[in-house]
Formats: sequence, C-alpha cells, structure tokens
Amino acid sequence: MRADGREPEQLRPIHIETDYLKHPEGSVLITVGDTKVICTASIDERVPPFMRGQGKGWITAEYSMLPRATEQRNIREAAKGKITGRTMEIQRLIGRALRAVVDLEALGERTVWLDCDVIQADGGTRTASITGAFIAMAQAMDKLYSNKKLPQYPVNDFLAATSVGILDNKHAAVDLNYIEDSSAQVDMNVVMTGNGEFVELQGTGEEATFSYTQLQELLSAAQGGISKLFEHQKAALGEKITTSINNKREKLEGKA
Amino acid sequence: MRADGREPEQLRPIHIETDYLKHPEGSVLITVGDTKVICTASIDERVPPFMRGQGKGWITAEYSMLPRATEQRNIREAAKGKITGRTMEIQRLIGRALRAVVDLEALGERTVWLDCDVIQADGGTRTASITGAFIAMAQAMDKLYSNKKLPQYPVNDFLAATSVGILDNKHAAVDLNYIEDSSAQVDMNVVMTGNGEFVELQGTGEEATFSYTQLQELLSAAQGGISKLFEHQKAALGEKITTSINNKREKLEGKA
Amino acid sequence: MRADGREPEQLRPIHIETDYLKHPEGSVLITVGDTKVICTASIDERVPPFMRGQGKGWITAEYSMLPRATEQRNIREAAKGKITGRTMEIQRLIGRALRAVVDLEALGERTVWLDCDVIQADGGTRTASITGAFIAMAQAMDKLYSNKKLPQYPVNDFLAATSVGILDNKHAAVDLNYIEDSSAQVDMNVVMTGNGEFVELQGTGEEATFSYTQLQELLSAAQGGISKLFEHQKAALGEKITTSINNKREKLEGKA
Amino acid sequence: MRADGREPEQLRPIHIETDYLKHPEGSVLITVGDTKVICTASIDERVPPFMRGQGKGWITAEYSMLPRATEQRNIREAAKGKITGRTMEIQRLIGRALRAVVDLEALGERTVWLDCDVIQADGGTRTASITGAFIAMAQAMDKLYSNKKLPQYPVNDFLAATSVGILDNKHAAVDLNYIEDSSAQVDMNVVMTGNGEFVELQGTGEEATFSYTQLQELLSAAQGGISKLFEHQKAALGEKITTSINNKREKLEGKA
Amino acid sequence: MRADGREPEQLRPIHIETDYLKHPEGSVLITVGDTKVICTASIDERVPPFMRGQGKGWITAEYSMLPRATEQRNIREAAKGKITGRTMEIQRLIGRALRAVVDLEALGERTVWLDCDVIQADGGTRTASITGAFIAMAQAMDKLYSNKKLPQYPVNDFLAATSVGILDNKHAAVDLNYIEDSSAQVDMNVVMTGNGEFVELQGTGEEATFSYTQLQELLSAAQGGISKLFEHQKAALGEKITTSINNKREKLEGKA
Amino acid sequence: MRADGREPEQLRPIHIETDYLKHPEGSVLITVGDTKVICTASIDERVPPFMRGQGKGWITAEYSMLPRATEQRNIREAAKGKITGRTMEIQRLIGRALRAVVDLEALGERTVWLDCDVIQADGGTRTASITGAFIAMAQAMDKLYSNKKLPQYPVNDFLAATSVGILDNKHAAVDLNYIEDSSAQVDMNVVMTGNGEFVELQGTGEEATFSYTQLQELLSAAQGGISKLFEHQKAALGEKITTSINNKREKLEGKA
Repeated sequence: MRADGREPEQLRPIHIETDYLKHPEGSVLITVGDTKVICTASIDERVPPFMRGQGKGWITAEYSMLPRATEQRNIREAAKGKITGRTMEIQRLIGRALRAVVDLEALGERTVWLDCDVIQADGGTRTASITGAFIAMAQAMDKLYSNKKLPQYPVNDFLAATSVGILDNKHAAVDLNYIEDSSAQVDMNVVMTGNGEFVELQGTGEEATFSYTQLQELLSAAQGGISKLFEHQKAALGEKITTSINNKREKLEGKA
Repeated sequence: MRADGREPEQLRPIHIETDYLKHPEGSVLITVGDTKVICTASIDERVPPFMRGQGKGWITAEYSMLPRATEQRNIREAAKGKITGRTMEIQRLIGRALRAVVDLEALGERTVWLDCDVIQADGGTRTASITGAFIAMAQAMDKLYSNKKLPQYPVNDFLAATSVGILDNKHAAVDLNYIEDSSAQVDMNVVMTGNGEFVELQGTGEEATFSYTQLQELLSAAQGGISKLFEHQKAALGEKITTSINNKREKLEGKA
Repeated sequence: MRADGREPEQLRPIHIETDYLKHPEGSVLITVGDTKVICTASIDERVPPFMRGQGKGWITAEYSMLPRATEQRNIREAAKGKITGRTMEIQRLIGRALRAVVDLEALGERTVWLDCDVIQADGGTRTASITGAFIAMAQAMDKLYSNKKLPQYPVNDFLAATSVGILDNKHAAVDLNYIEDSSAQVDMNVVMTGNGEFVELQGTGEEATFSYTQLQELLSAAQGGISKLFEHQKAALGEKITTSINNKREKLEGKA
Repeated sequence: MRADGREPEQLRPIHIETDYLKHPEGSVLITVGDTKVICTASIDERVPPFMRGQGKGWITAEYSMLPRATEQRNIREAAKGKITGRTMEIQRLIGRALRAVVDLEALGERTVWLDCDVIQADGGTRTASITGAFIAMAQAMDKLYSNKKLPQYPVNDFLAATSVGILDNKHAAVDLNYIEDSSAQVDMNVVMTGNGEFVELQGTGEEATFSYTQLQELLSAAQGGISKLFEHQKAALGEKITTSINNKREKLEGKA
Repeated sequence: MRADGREPEQLRPIHIETDYLKHPEGSVLITVGDTKVICTASIDERVPPFMRGQGKGWITAEYSMLPRATEQRNIREAAKGKITGRTMEIQRLIGRALRAVVDLEALGERTVWLDCDVIQADGGTRTASITGAFIAMAQAMDKLYSNKKLPQYPVNDFLAATSVGILDNKHAAVDLNYIEDSSAQVDMNVVMTGNGEFVELQGTGEEATFSYTQLQELLSAAQGGISKLFEHQKAALGEKITTSINNKREKLEGKA
Repeated sequence: MRADGREPEQLRPIHIETDYLKHPEGSVLITVGDTKVICTASIDERVPPFMRGQGKGWITAEYSMLPRATEQRNIREAAKGKITGRTMEIQRLIGRALRAVVDLEALGERTVWLDCDVIQADGGTRTASITGAFIAMAQAMDKLYSNKKLPQYPVNDFLAATSVGILDNKHAAVDLNYIEDSSAQVDMNVVMTGNGEFVELQGTGEEATFSYTQLQELLSAAQGGISKLFEHQKAALGEKITTSINNKREKLEGKA
C-alpha cells in the first residue's frame, strides 16, 4: 500500500470541468488528486510559416505553472526572460502527443494552440496536461465541425497519459504524486491511444537503471491507469463527441 | 442605463473564494462580472538587497494573464522573452498600492509576494487584482501573526480599487467592463483605503481630455463603488481578521 | 518657504533652447532648474503595423537618461539588455499625453517619434520631457505643414505638465526638485491642455495616503504652474506656430 | 535490406579518436557513419549552488552543432540569443544518462562538464554524443584517480546509446541515418549500461503510434547494437580504464 | 581642397566645454565640426571582479548615440535589447586607449567609468570621444588627487585621436566628416600620446586596399592633426592639470 | 630566439586539410602550431535586406570557439544568450577582410557565409580564421563558377593574415602563440593581399605604446610571414583555382 493509501494500480481521484472559461473554443479544468491544470484550445486560422501551402493543419502546445502552484514559490519564466529546459521539453511532448491522434489534412490550414496552465501542482502535471488538453481540443474541433468548417471530424482516437514509477519497494505504481515522484528510482511517462497503441514512452532512471522485467511491469500499470482515464474523457466529452471519435477511428481501421 | 442593464453607480456581481489553492499562505479567486483573477500571497523570509538591514519588510507584486484569458489569444510574455510595458505598469501599481496600508516595520525583514494571475478578462483586471490581493495578503499576514512571528498585526487599513470612466453620454460610470472600457473617453483607476483616503489616482484621456467637473463626478462614483468592495472584503476575511485591521487603524488614528 | 527659497506655487527657472540639434525635424533643450532634457521630434513616413490603412497618424515616445544624469551613475538599459518598468511607464505616459492634443487624421499615415533624453536630472524629468517634447513636436508639425504635406496644422492645443506633491508640512507645492520629491508623502504628475482640461492625472502615495481636500490643493497648485509653462512654450515656439495652434483650437471649440 | 545496404541490426562504421584535443581532461572525436562529434570532458573543482555542501559531485552536459554540420546552414544559437527546445532536451538527456553510471559521492564536490559539439550530422547525433561523452568522461575520471584526487574510480559501468526506429516496411532497424530517421514512423533512443539495464528510453511516434510487439522488436534491436558499442568503447579506453570500470561494477553487484 | 573648403591636413573647428554637467566627477561637451559628444568620468570605489585584490585600478568606457544624432533616426540599443557590434568595438577601443596613459597602480582599487554619448554625429565620433574622454578623466583624477585620495597624479601623458582616410583623389586627409568618411576608400583611426607614440592604429579598406606609401601619408596627416588636439586639451584642462601630466611623464621618462 | 625555439620572423608549422566536411560548399581544417580552426563557406542564394536589388553579393562571417578550445573552459555564448564584444569584433574583421578581395558584382545577389569555429586555441585564432576562410571561400566560389552560375571567377587576389608583436626584448616577432601574445606589449594583426597591399592593420598597445620605428619593424615581420602563408594557400587550393585568382588579379591590374 502507498503512503496515501492507494493500491499500486490505483489512480488518484479525477475531476474534469468542461467549458471552464468563457473565451476559448475549448477549455477544461482537470483535477488529478491535488494537481489542477487549466487546459484551453484556441483555433488560429493560419499555420506557422514552415507549414504554409501544404493544405495541412498544426497542433502546438504551451505549458506553464503559476508561481505558487508549488510548495515553494517559483520565479516566473517571463521575469527570467527565458523558458527553462523542463518547460520546453514538456510543451514539445504535449504538442507531439496530441498531433499523433489528429488528421491534420482534415483540419485544413489551421493551428490549434493548446495552453496548459498548472494552477496547483502535486506530481503528474505533464500527463494531466495531455489528458486535459485532449478534451479541450476535441471540443474545439467539434465546434469547427459543427460550424461546417471541416469536411470531417479530425480526431482519430482518444489519447491520455499517466506516469508510472518504480517505488522504494522495487515495484511499479501508477499516477505518482509529488512525494512518490521525488523518491522514485525510475520515472516513466506513457501516452497511449484508445486502441491500445503507444504514442510516447519516456522512461528515465535518475542516478538509477531499470531492467526489462521492470519495464514490462511499468507498462502494464500504465495501460491499466490510462484505460480508466479514457472513461473520464468520454464522460466529460459526452456522447456526441465520443461517437465522432469512435466513428473516425473505425473508418481508419477499416482502411488499414 | 448601461449596455448590461446596470445603473451608472452599480458594480458588477462580485464573488470571492478564499483558500483557493493548497500551497500559498493566502489565496483567493476573485470574480468581478466575467473578470476572474487568482491572487496569492507568498511569504519569503528575506527582503530584496536594497532593503537589507533596515529592519523593514517589503511587498511586491507580479501580474500576468493566461494566453486565453482574452477574446483573442495573447502571446505569453515568457515566450516573447520580455514583459510588456502594460504588465510592468500594473504590477508596479499593485505593489505600491498594497504597501500603502502595511506597517513595514511591524512586518520585519520579510517579503510578501503577491501574484495576480488573470484567468478570464472582461475589463478591470488591475483593480480586481488589487482588491483580491489585499485579501490574500491579509490572510497571509494573519497566518504569520497567529504563529507569533509578528509583534502586531501589520495591516493598517482596508484597501480596494475600482475603475471609473466617462462613457459616450459624457457621464461617469463605475466598474467598466471590457466593451465600456474600450469606448470610454476617459478611464480612471482609483485605489482607496477604508478610512476614505486616496492611495492612487490614475486618470487618462486616450486622445481626449476631461474637465474638473467630470473629475469630481468620477471620484464620487469611485468612492461609492469602493465602499461596497470593502463589505465584500470583510465578509471574505471574516470577523477575526476584520477586527485585527480595524484595531490597527484605530491605534494609528489615535496616534495621529 | 521651501529649501531652495521658492514659494509653494513657484516653478524653478525655465530655459528653452529650440533648434538645438542639426538633424531632427524638431529639437529642444529644456532646462527646469537643474533638470535638463534634450527632446527631439522625428517624422517617419510610415505608421506601426497595427495602425496601417486607417488613414491616421501615430505619436510615440522614448525616454532615457544618460548614465551620469544622476548623483550616482546608473547602468545603461542597453547594457542590461532590457528597459526598466519606470522607463516604460514614462515613455507610455509621454506618448499618450501628446496624442491627446494631436489630430491624428490630419497628420495622415505618419509617425512622430519623440525622444526625450535626460542629460541632467534633478526631479521632474517626466514632466519636463512632456513640456519640451510638445515644443519639438509642434515645430516638426510646422515643418510638415509649411512643406504642404498636411491639409491643416494638426496640433489641437497647447500641452504641458508639472509635478505637485504634499511636502512635510502637509501642504501642496509645485515643481518638486529631487530632494523634495524623495521626501514628499504624495507625488502627483498633472498634464493639462491650453484650455484648462486634464489629460493625465497620476497621483501616488508611496507608503502614504491623501484626502480629497489635499487633492484639491494639489490640482490648484498644478494648474497655476502649468499656466506659466504655456507662456514659456509660446515664447519658444514664436508667433506663427502659436497662432496655428490657437486657430486649430478655436476651430475645434466652434465645432463642439 | 536498407538504402545504404545495411542489415536491420547492423550499425554504421564506427571510429573513435581519443585525446583529440590538447586542453581538455578527456576528449574524443567519435565518428558513426557520417556523423562526427567532438566530445570533451572538463573538470571543474566546484559544484553548482544547488549541490553545495552535500559532499557529492555533478555531471552536466552541453550540446551544439556547427552551423554547417547539416545539409542546410543553421543559424547559431548564440546569434539567436537563445537555445532551442531541441538542444535543451538533448543536453538534459546526455547529462542525466551519464549521471546514472557515476558514483557522485566518490567524485566529491566537483563538476564534470561534457561538451558535445557536432561537426558533421547524419542522424543519431544525440546517441553518438552519449557514447562519445562516456569515453571522454572515463578518461577525465582516470586522470583524477591517477592523480590521487579520488578515493576510488567513480564510474560504475559502461554506458552507450543508439537509435532504433520502425521503417517503412513496419520493421525495426538500428542506428538510423538522417534519411531513415526523417521517414521513420517511430523513433526511439535507448541508453543502456554494460550490465544490460536501461537508463533512458525515449520512444516517439511523430503523427504515428506503435504496438507492444513493435516495442519489443525495437528494444531487441537496440540491445544488439549497444552491445557492439561497448566493444568499441573498451578498445578506445584501453585495458587499464576498462578494468577500473569492471572492478567498480563488480564491487557494486557484490553489495546489491 | 575638400568639399567643406578645408586643406587635407586641416582639422574642423573644435570647441571644448568643461564642467558641462553637475553630477559627474569630470564632464565635457566636445564639438568637432558638427560632431558633438558629452563625455563624463565617474569614479567608482570598486574594481570589477577580475581585478580584485591586485591593488590596481581599472578604466572602462561606454559609448552610445542619441537616436536622432544622425540624419536618419536610429533604433535605441536598449529597445533592441542588445548592443551592436559597432558599439562594442568602439567602447572597447575607448577603454583600451585611455588605459594606455593611466598608471593603474597609482589609481588604486577604483574604476573610472567613461561615458561618451554622441548627441550629434557628423563623422569621427569615436575619435572625438577619446579626445573628450581624456579631458573628463584628467579632471576626475585631479579631483581624487586634490582630495588626497591618491599618492600621485595617475595620468602618464596626454592622449588624443583623430581619423584619417584616403579620399577619391587617392590622397590622405585628416578628420573626415560623415560624407568624406562614407566615400573614403580607406579609413584609419589613430590614437597617440603626447610624446608621439602610437597607442592604437586601426586601418581598414572596406572593399579596397592601401599601399605602404599611402600608410605613411596617413600616419603623417594623423600626427599633424593630433598635435593640434593636444593644444586644445591643454587649454581646456588649464595649467594646473597640464603641469601634473607633464610632471608625471617626465618622471616616467627619467625612469626609462 | 623565442621560447619555442623559433626565429623572430618564423611562422609556426602550418597544415591545411581541404574538403574537411561533407555538407559545406567549401571547408578547411587549418592548423597553425596548436591553433586549429574549422572554416566553412556556405552559399546562400539571397542577400541580406540592406543589399537587395543592387545586383551585388555579400560576404559575412561568424566566429566561435568550442568551450574547451582553451586552457580553461569558456561559457558558451549561446548559454549566456549574447555574443561578447571580442567575438563581434573578430567576425566583423573576418567579413570585412574577405570582402576586400571579392568582386561582389561578379558574385551576383548571393551571400557567402564564412563560419570559423576554433576547436583548439593557442594564439592567432583570428588570423588563422582569415587565412583558412579564404581557402574555403575560394573553393566555394570555384564550385559556383564551375557550375556556370557566375560569369567570371569573383576572387580578385589572395588574402592572408598573421599577428605580429613587440616581445619583452623590445623587438618584433611574427605569429605569436598564446604565451607570447599574453606578454607582448604591442599586438598587431595584419591582413594583406597577394599583391602586397594592406587590407587591415590593427595595432594595439594594451597599457603600452609603440614608436614609428617599431611599427616599421612590425610591418616588415608581418609581410614576411604572410608571403609564406600565400604559398600554403596555393598548395591547398591547387593549380586550377590559383590560376583563376591570378588571372582575375592580372585583369584588374590591366584595368587600373
């Protein structure tokens, strides 16, 4: 049993509040334990210069933390005048992960900006951001599609993420909170799609290593946790959007 | 009557949620109409270099907006690598205003960081930030005082702010929303203390001017609005802290 | 009586040298007591991107100090690689103030750059900058108008600024020098037009507050000082430009 | 068979030139196919502020490319004034990977700087950097150890890295060159230790996904390639340092 | 004869106004033709970190231009957020040149900051800066010496600079104005000491070259011009400081 | 005799490896004693904005050092976020020097980027960069010319550079290594063309001066050294390119 009483394969309580803000095309406040992230999706009717003229869209993400999302106050990156390596890694990860389930041709020459702002942090902020950003994006896509701006709904499948790690007892556990994360020997972030495929796998032993057997244990724990996240996503998105995504996936599987 | 049905001297609906976040010493989600700001107060047991060795504390503020707090997505200042002039002006104003009601000697060599993060903007974000930051700060001060870290409660008086402006009909109105603010000929931010004194007065005619009579009308509207904000602050802070502030003010007035 | 022997309502000696530099379309060395500012006006035959295609002009200002304008040498902002909040506030104020008396339609799609470089500082640098920049701008406008580049002279009225403050004796005084400014409890910058209207009012109590009665005293002192500044401006600009401005104002007042 | 005639499990030709530069404590020119990286190790007799007083050392890495290491000339990051997200990710990866095989207590309060400068790029620059930096570091550590500055040799095990990917034929291949890397559906970087454990696993489907079966194929290909890299490292380091590392690992395994 | 009627070896009119500003320890407005530079010297009772503990002083310079010192308005370096290569070259040159005539041991652990701010530019701004900065520095040194803060006067000799160039007629001319400078095939800046030695020689053919014979012609023209500059410096500094410098030089020559 | 046994007029051993890298249009590894620089030439089929529409080409240079090119590790300029004054001076010098021997009209609207990356430093890195960059540029130009992209070969003459200095014995020596350079009283960089003309002369006395006689001695030493560098350049470039350059020079001399 873990310090907060959870089983190794048990996620923390999850709460998702959709349409959280007034202005964005999609917005969510996702709560995973004590981690809270505001995720918004904004549609920009242009693509970045390197994508112009290809008839395809683009998905990009930005990630930030309020200074006092954490136990100790952090200096704002705007005040420092530059973005840290950690932030860059995370926002590149979020963008790359979300692009893996979007039909960019169907999106057309548009950019979807995903902004993930952590207002309270207790471990797992990057995976909560991916899980929440997916919902904000799916809603924004639905708005475009309902307004007849898209020939078809462009989201190919569900996408969610969680962290797993090897705790002190040498065994895998899912959805680490901050204290577990700090003491874990191995930390792995896993992003998967609704049909059980991997999109990203980032496993790191900080001053430690892990065996093939431990890797298998980690992946199995991740898979279990992510399948529960899909249920939360479906409940939050509602039947209409869930059906749009399922239809799109089935069409793709038919083709393959 | 105004576009949203309000009387000239009527504030928008106000909601204040205290203890909004887990980590900060004080935290508030303040809602003024559709403007929402998370204000936190963080205690740092050091003062900046220019204040060291004087036995006095310091109050400083930072202000930011989520990229999609607004109708159009804004580029993050961290991504630009620098803070805009508007942000600098606002955070200097917030810090200066709050310092006017704090007994910095009583605070001792500590810094209180006030972070105001606008998550949704509809006009009046800087005045909502001041009104909300005051509450977060008063709570953080109470925590220090209750923990016997301070010889006396260091907040001298209540402090709140609102905007007033000259609308198209040439008359003053209080608490402008974004649309009113954009079309107002004159825009003035007023910060006042519980005993009716001014702390800041910033009146600006963007490509326009205003007469002494109009100034009097503006100040009277501001005074009325701010007196209602004090009632909200007292309700949010509760009886204990309200009494601490009132006692401190009375002691000061006795001295003067 | 004040430390330098002045009456409360007395300005410091003022000297204005026009056509101070060879290259700019308008240039002035303005001296207010020991404060000396070089103000230049430069015409740029383009407007910034956000103004294009509107048929209107733009006025923008930059402000800087020589490193040794002050008692202690200041680090150059170019060496720091960024502009301080104080500088940003001042240059935004100067630009906004000047725009209030310019008919931007009459100016056409042009930008007037106002550069205010303080070569010696003894308090009141921002208000001396506004007062001096007005003269440089009026001259540059006259050059455009005389060269038949403008359909009408585009300056609507005179504009000047001064500081006022509450000194130790609790009473208002005008045109504070550096020592007075440092010890003043309340500091207010006032920008007014030739017809007695306000353009900007920025009153600040640094760790202090002020009453409505004190505000009235401050505004009255400001009004007296600014009316004398207008006389200096008229003398410096000469009869031809003074008449152009007066005619333009009268035409506007006729319309209103 | 692959475009350049290699088998799926075949590495490109590898050449390692040690003591490549005169000044650094360790230096290597590593050539993997047409990818060439200069790796140097520099000893700094201090640790960064966050590590002071813990009696432990630190390993940190920096990565860069010459502007013309690539087909198209790249703008220098020094000219841009900031480091790209890609560079940050890579240098964080290199540092983290190397730290996993160093006994930081045995190193004492010292920093080892690993500089990886790509002079010619043809895919796999980050994995060649890790493989080469390990050699430079092991040599620098040997210099410290031989000079009696360390109580014991601080490198716990060999460490090397390669890339693997899913090519168009849906099967895994090792050590992708630039053309293969650009067209691969899935790209994975694997860092392993001499005793067969994982240190880092970063698998990414850019606009694609991968199954559990494909993951197993990728890992098996990586393992085969990395075991050959260890032979190159041993040959380059020579018998003395190879023995030091083997002894250190055996001692650790004895303890565990 | 030259475009402005000067002989090849003739300087433009020179005017030097000492004690130009109130705050600095030394200050000068130097006018060379239409080039005007404010040079100030500021004493800082510390040396930069790399000089600490050596018992020696340091001389450093900064150079800048007002935006409208030139025909076309220049963007401020503070607004760009970085200093251009041209400015860096010039300020390094000024500092290096001035250090060549200062006895840094006699100065003690102090820094002299030389600020050269060009308020009007018409060619030769860097050489006018050196010639003017020397005067400001000599005065600041005299202030230190007169206040008994220095064991001896630390300026070893006079120092002045001018530009020379090869004009269209293939012959050398001294003290080029902006138009001459723009069309000169070769441009050379020469810094010399009172006893006729060189301190700096920077000759450049922009898309052109020059022969040994032309070099001799250039140096002879420079020598003639600089000897006249020394007379202006002596007149500006007055007899007392001139004698201090002469005495110091004679003492050095006696030693050598 | 010098510390490393050389005569005053003797260069260090020189080695030039052409076609050093795979991607650039021209590339060289030049070794002068222990100084090693990779010089590459890259053709860009555009010119910078200020050159557009003139029918002329442009030559520009960038210079950098690997962090461990030196005895002590240097901080990367990319990590600092800005380029030092020294680097700017050097890259401006390299570009200017190379432009002096290129017929920019014959080059057409193209830019040649010269990248000089010092991988090992032992004095004279800027002069080795010029000498090596000339070779890389001449090869890249030959590639353009052979591909019929140019009407004529655009390099007007050979160009090489060396340093000279006044050593402790008060006499001139050529090609200073790092130790000589550090202790030299006067340091001069000389860039010359194949027909014996000067392109750049930068002589500097750091806290010292030099006489006209010493200048003559320095120039004579430089001339001797540079004439030997031309032989190395001709051997490296081969007969075809050497003939192209000689023909171009003779044609120019015929015209003159």
